[in-house]
Amino acid sequence: MSTLREEALKMHRDNQGKLTVKSKVTVNNAEDLSLAYSPGVAEPCKEIHADEGQVYDYTMKGNLVAIVSDGTAVLGLGNIGPHAAMPVMEGKAVLFKAFAGVDAFPLCVDTNEVDKIVETVKLLAPTFGGVNLEDIAAPKCFLIEERLKRELDIPIFHDDQHGTAIVTLAGLINALKVVNKKMDEIRVVANGAGAAGIAIIKLLLSLGVKDIIMCDSKGAIYEGRTDGMNSIKEHIAKVTNQSGIQGDLSEAMKDADVFIGVSVAGAVTPDMIRSMNRDPIIFAMANPVPEIMPEDAYEAGATVVGTGRSDFPNQVNNVLAFPGIFRGALDVRARSINEEMKVAAAYAIAELISEEELSANYVIPAPFNENVAPRVAAEVARAAMETNQARIQREPSEVAERTRQLTRSDG
Amino acid sequence: MSTLREEALKMHRDNQGKLTVKSKVTVNNAEDLSLAYSPGVAEPCKEIHADEGQVYDYTMKGNLVAIVSDGTAVLGLGNIGPHAAMPVMEGKAVLFKAFAGVDAFPLCVDTNEVDKIVETVKLLAPTFGGVNLEDIAAPKCFLIEERLKRELDIPIFHDDQHGTAIVTLAGLINALKVVNKKMDEIRVVANGAGAAGIAIIKLLLSLGVKDIIMCDSKGAIYEGRTDGMNSIKEHIAKVTNQSGIQGDLSEAMKDADVFIGVSVAGAVTPDMIRSMNRDPIIFAMANPVPEIMPEDAYEAGATVVGTGRSDFPNQVNNVLAFPGIFRGALDVRARSINEEMKVAAAYAIAELISEEELSANYVIPAPFNENVAPRVAAEVARAAMETNQARIQREPSEVAERTRQLTRSDG
Repeated sequence: MSTLREEALKMHRDNQGKLTVKSKVTVNNAEDLSLAYSPGVAEPCKEIHADEGQVYDYTMKGNLVAIVSDGTAVLGLGNIGPHAAMPVMEGKAVLFKAFAGVDAFPLCVDTNEVDKIVETVKLLAPTFGGVNLEDIAAPKCFLIEERLKRELDIPIFHDDQHGTAIVTLAGLINALKVVNKKMDEIRVVANGAGAAGIAIIKLLLSLGVKDIIMCDSKGAIYEGRTDGMNSIKEHIAKVTNQSGIQGDLSEAMKDADVFIGVSVAGAVTPDMIRSMNRDPIIFAMANPVPEIMPEDAYEAGATVVGTGRSDFPNQVNNVLAFPGIFRGALDVRARSINEEMKVAAAYAIAELISEEELSANYVIPAPFNENVAPRVAAEVARAAMETNQARIQREPSEVAERTRQLTRSDG
Repeated sequence: MSTLREEALKMHRDNQGKLTVKSKVTVNNAEDLSLAYSPGVAEPCKEIHADEGQVYDYTMKGNLVAIVSDGTAVLGLGNIGPHAAMPVMEGKAVLFKAFAGVDAFPLCVDTNEVDKIVETVKLLAPTFGGVNLEDIAAPKCFLIEERLKRELDIPIFHDDQHGTAIVTLAGLINALKVVNKKMDEIRVVANGAGAAGIAIIKLLLSLGVKDIIMCDSKGAIYEGRTDGMNSIKEHIAKVTNQSGIQGDLSEAMKDADVFIGVSVAGAVTPDMIRSMNRDPIIFAMANPVPEIMPEDAYEAGATVVGTGRSDFPNQVNNVLAFPGIFRGALDVRARSINEEMKVAAAYAIAELISEEELSANYVIPAPFNENVAPRVAAEVARAAMETNQARIQREPSEVAERTRQLTRSDG
């Protein structure tokens, strides 16, 4: 551990951060200067002034995503504030670039107020083609995302919610094939009502899952529960848990087909897994220690186990989702990232594993599988066009090919 | 002209803007990922959380400048709004990088309200090591700059004001050597009370000029004038025009030693120049057509003439100032850019022309003189340290050498 710590500090210090801004044009002489700056630069300005949409043609906006964070819910570190969150946001930008050729830029904001974060992002919208919200604590993250989605016409995406949800659901799509069950017949128990948990529930509903029970630290969420509720949990209570199950997690897990944990280490016991329906599917994503360790889950009878960790099979890693999702959205100048685009991304990730390759230990592709981002981008672009979110039309195959080119050229 | 227009549009379109975000580190495998992102990235986060100042060591902040504009006063284009202003701001970032290795990033804000622009910049301050305000209309630009300088502890610089002022004053320093006059003995007439004009007056005072008359479209500004005044002009009236001259520009120009124009084409006549003191010095910077064309000024008896244009000698080009100024300020992690740092920049630019090289046609160095930014950076860093604006100490010669290295490596 001490070695990783020293190496990480040295790498960040030696480079003075991980990002730099580069010119795509040279200015070595007066002629260069007259094109890139005065007087030539007035020409694209005039074009955009005459038709605002041309900002996508003449500026970096069309490939540019703001990574916005207030630093209140950073990785395993919690509320460390905007300065200390910078290395994570720079790292995220590095991933956007490496995996999908997206120019992403960190904007760490010095406030925790919903109104101020919303206003700041809105005021900066002319510059950016999309916004990735990152490491903002629940429940504010829901309010911020909802308002920005309503008030802006560029893609808004809170990766901690939807990235995790999409990759988990991709794993679930494949896990169900392994155990031969159907999406509309399974019972899913989701534990943890934070940002990712709520997004998982929503996406499960979009995918056609009918029987879902969400649990938090007080146990199953049901209509009429009074303890530890809030407006989002009230909503969850309405749209899930149709059988009205009450009690703690062990009660909810009885006869369930799938457990999805975004909660805390050790939340699941072997006995809980033994109480599940045949061929239990377990996504235990608490970090760094899962709700149950994979070996214990298998020993208790689980058939498929995924975690958030790279040292076990079936890693739920957001990097499988967000780069390709924004690549696809940007390439058709999408107005939003809607549920259909998220579902398309989940299926695209799942389908990267062929029927022959598919196994209990391989339901989620590896992070460095270079087919992921092109495929996700193509399917997200297709879904954007089909749901009228695209400002321009592009062949999905062209989007995939462009993704490959952009990532290759950026090494 | 049509060729420049077509070339400029093609260049901007082909590149989809002029800027890109690049990683300084590679992520080709799981080990790379563990350093640049999870879990290694937590280490610099923890360091910064423990000591906020370390954000300069572990992130891009220390080399990062926000270029903030509302698009209300763009080049010769006027109020074209934040979208249409993007090509200019990207161009500015290209110059920051090419001339001084500064990472600069455009932030075009969708508001003209002083409070909102100030608040947005303040909220984003954790990310940036400095802020360059650009193409914001007067008088709002003064209020925004003043408030940000007071409320933030990173350098704030409105280039349209101070960049122009610094380069003009550098030219004046050398022009006075050519005509053998002293700073504290000359009378200067400045025409145009916009952003640049006001900044020029302030810097003239800092440089020790005692006799200054500012004119606007209503003529000389004097204490007691009632027509077309505002709070800034009231202040100017107090600190200039000690002899209480009234009347139009031709009245003010009588017996003046220096004319500085940031006004409109044709504002100066040959007769006005004939009415000046011996060896008139003329900086006629209206763009693209100067207050008087150089040939007419020379014919009427001017000794030194500068303009804003690259096709005449003595071009007042901001690129001589802002890259080196921010390089120097960033390299010592300056808290501000104060008057002393601006004066240091003006003298640094002036002194790049040796006594032997100096002539009426060569009082301002050429924009591509590669000694400018290193020299300016070194002297600005020195002034920052001497006036207690520097968070860290660095040898000026080291700052100069670093500037050379950074610009070389970014070609």
